[in-house]
Amino acid sequence: MIRELCHIVVKPGTQAGFEAAVHQALAIFKRSKGCHQVELHHVIEKPEEYMLIIHWEKLEDHLEGFRKSPDYQEWRGLVGGFFAQAPDVVHASAVI
Amino acid sequence: MIRELCHIVVKPGTQAGFEAAVHQALAIFKRSKGCHQVELHHVIEKPEEYMLIIHWEKLEDHLEGFRKSPDYQEWRGLVGGFFAQAPDVVHASAVI
Repeated sequence: MIRELCHIVVKPGTQAGFEAAVHQALAIFKRSKGCHQVELHHVIEKPEEYMLIIHWEKLEDHLEGFRKSPDYQEWRGLVGGFFAQAPDVVHASAVI
Repeated sequence: MIRELCHIVVKPGTQAGFEAAVHQALAIFKRSKGCHQVELHHVIEKPEEYMLIIHWEKLEDHLEGFRKSPDYQEWRGLVGGFFAQAPDVVHASAVI
């Protein structure tokens, strides 16, 4: 199991719309192969910033399966308009 | 409940020592008021980087309780020598 750590900055004043779009997108992740959980965290000190954490069975489930599927286009269609800049994405394995 | 999101960069080649130090420090967090969970994630694309995620009952439990306690000094004593730069710390509340 790995986690996708996605640092997102949204356009000012669009937080409610962005959060509603991520809620709507949960159905996409629920049906995606290897996707186990979605967490969205709102940064207290920087109200336009979020950390989206997605638990994937394998790195390939995200990079090959999801990213190359129509589901990825649907996800970007829902949330892409809220991004102030391209999200910063890395993957991580749990040590503790 | 809030999460402390701590982005850590360690000095090259010190990963094993750093991870052992965080394991050792779990006892500190276990006894800290309001600390519910510690997660340590190792960034796959950037092997010198980690995301430490600590679940606190309230923001004050971290900033006032922990940061101003001798436990914080003990924590920094264990891990501070591994840091390549000052960690980047923010706090976040869960939306999803």
